[in-house]
Amino acid sequence: MNARVLGLAPSVIRAIHDRKRPDALDLGMGQPTLLPDMAPLEEALAWVRTHGCPYSPNAGFTELRRAISGHFHYPGLDTADQALITIGSTEALYLAIKGLLDADAGDELLVVGPTFPAYQKMGFMEGLPTREVMLDAAQDFAPRADRVLSALSPKTRLLALASPCNPTGRIWPEAELVRLAEGLLHAPQPIFVLWDEVYRDLYYTPTPPPSLARFYPRTLVAGSLSKSCALTGLRLGWLLAPSEVFTAVYKVHQLSISCAETLAQRAALAIFKKPELLSAHRAHYQAQQSALCDAAAELGLALLRPEGTFYALLRLPPRWASDSYGCAMGILEEKNVVTIPGAAFGAEGFLRLTFVAPIDPMREALGRIAEFLAA
Amino acid sequence: MNARVLGLAPSVIRAIHDRKRPDALDLGMGQPTLLPDMAPLEEALAWVRTHGCPYSPNAGFTELRRAISGHFHYPGLDTADQALITIGSTEALYLAIKGLLDADAGDELLVVGPTFPAYQKMGFMEGLPTREVMLDAAQDFAPRADRVLSALSPKTRLLALASPCNPTGRIWPEAELVRLAEGLLHAPQPIFVLWDEVYRDLYYTPTPPPSLARFYPRTLVAGSLSKSCALTGLRLGWLLAPSEVFTAVYKVHQLSISCAETLAQRAALAIFKKPELLSAHRAHYQAQQSALCDAAAELGLALLRPEGTFYALLRLPPRWASDSYGCAMGILEEKNVVTIPGAAFGAEGFLRLTFVAPIDPMREALGRIAEFLAA
Repeated sequence: MNARVLGLAPSVIRAIHDRKRPDALDLGMGQPTLLPDMAPLEEALAWVRTHGCPYSPNAGFTELRRAISGHFHYPGLDTADQALITIGSTEALYLAIKGLLDADAGDELLVVGPTFPAYQKMGFMEGLPTREVMLDAAQDFAPRADRVLSALSPKTRLLALASPCNPTGRIWPEAELVRLAEGLLHAPQPIFVLWDEVYRDLYYTPTPPPSLARFYPRTLVAGSLSKSCALTGLRLGWLLAPSEVFTAVYKVHQLSISCAETLAQRAALAIFKKPELLSAHRAHYQAQQSALCDAAAELGLALLRPEGTFYALLRLPPRWASDSYGCAMGILEEKNVVTIPGAAFGAEGFLRLTFVAPIDPMREALGRIAEFLAA
Repeated sequence: MNARVLGLAPSVIRAIHDRKRPDALDLGMGQPTLLPDMAPLEEALAWVRTHGCPYSPNAGFTELRRAISGHFHYPGLDTADQALITIGSTEALYLAIKGLLDADAGDELLVVGPTFPAYQKMGFMEGLPTREVMLDAAQDFAPRADRVLSALSPKTRLLALASPCNPTGRIWPEAELVRLAEGLLHAPQPIFVLWDEVYRDLYYTPTPPPSLARFYPRTLVAGSLSKSCALTGLRLGWLLAPSEVFTAVYKVHQLSISCAETLAQRAALAIFKKPELLSAHRAHYQAQQSALCDAAAELGLALLRPEGTFYALLRLPPRWASDSYGCAMGILEEKNVVTIPGAAFGAEGFLRLTFVAPIDPMREALGRIAEFLAA
């Protein structure tokens, strides 16, 4: 058996969900509650009715690759040849980590935290030296280029970061991205960045989240339709990769998956032909975010106001500052509310709350959390 | 960059297809020409209309896992817990090879050839010692347990084989499977078998292909809907794995893909509720196989009569016995017919022909091949 695979830590999120009672109020699950627009799916089915359901080319249908790269229009990533259609953004992350890094050469993966634990687990699974650089909890995890740059080592070959970020809800501002790009360009070795913008269409700032791909040429962009279009189950993602690394990520994809699903790709093509569909759910999440922030303020909870995603961190009082797991379990047992311990993301002393639930139960859940923390 | 990934040999099949002219007669592509039954896809869409398109559990929807494991009813693999829903059978093969074998421990993958080249390439990509044991061309690649057993080494931990087999069209008969199982049970170390039965519903023998899973408990079964239901683009496959190795393959899947597509899974559930759909295309392929064999016999071509799959091997005359690549390129250039050199599968001295094309062009193509070989 593959010892590295078996050695992967079990999921904290799963452990929490395994204890969930059927009538629990759930602020744990990050799954859109909106129904998707059916028109793109109907269009996909109509295509299959005429054409059958053949394989696409390994990298995806050329029209879709062209539509996605053209939509984002990132410098050096704006042609069909730069886009690979993947099984959600999960596969995109995996391809970048596996394709770009050589464990035998000691290539290091550096992950900017707190963040989704998959990047690090993928690094461990591939036998790669993997480190994490944490943004500062005292500054509410505000993105800071200098902090990240000072953590680079001569072996760092890939930097992974997300904006908007799960679980912090933070967005990297343009000024920090410019600083990050400059610092990376001056590194002695070429460093690639895996830029995860799967939440790019869910933002609550005056302007859309800026992308590092506009400032730094060695950027690989991972994205998907899961969050923006309530299509988590469609598993339709993409990786935009510079020419010099495309072959490496493409070969892993070709050999481990062959190609993405045809129906999902045809639906995605319909969506990118009407790109307003990508932001159609934003107003809904904006209202959810406001409701969450208002309720937390009324209850005196120390919520970090999210700039994007459908997650927010709640800062715990000193009693729980080094035991977010115990706190989440206590809230689950005593108050029947599901939350996720920040420790699962490297944010000890915080709980992660999801704001996809209808507003009334969400308010009720926050009230119970406040009671628990005040007890 | 990952040196093992970049070191993967380029695809011979791709090299041939890159030279194909638009008006070529194509006996290369292994893609069903039938249109799929739309009812299961309509049913899947109706489900999404009501339920949205959420993630399934990582291993797949429980109902589907139960339906698949129950349908095959292989001993030790007949509960939902043993079934993992994958992105086509390709991912199933990848999970087994990556999850079961430990490169650091020197675990060896032994592949029974001639066969589809992916098993070996996956082994190379994972840094695993990978060997091939070839069935005997002089015996038309008839499956022989003794030949395989005598190739085992003390390091062999996984044996990969396909039945029905692409490209040979051969099916392992029950007597040889019993011998193989007995030999494996007496091996000093536990040996798992990756049993690829993706073509199990396309057989031209009086009875269906027997499965090793009935005779040997350490069998992992890979399958998909791609070939049986003309749904290659649906990317719906499965891996049935014994309890002792399930966690290892599941973790790789969870981390690299997250879960299979929801629409595809709902369509698969509709198909397994009407399992006659799995064999609905068999009569068509049986007619195709007969037409191919008849035409080859009329033309005096040395075709190995396929027992299953939609592929057959053509034995080349002595002039081409050690240059199937040159032969395929010559046929492509001079006769405008696409065939695949047997060398791509470890079957040097043969060409692989696909019999999915309409019968008249298939006959015409065979005629041109005969002309080329006679010249």
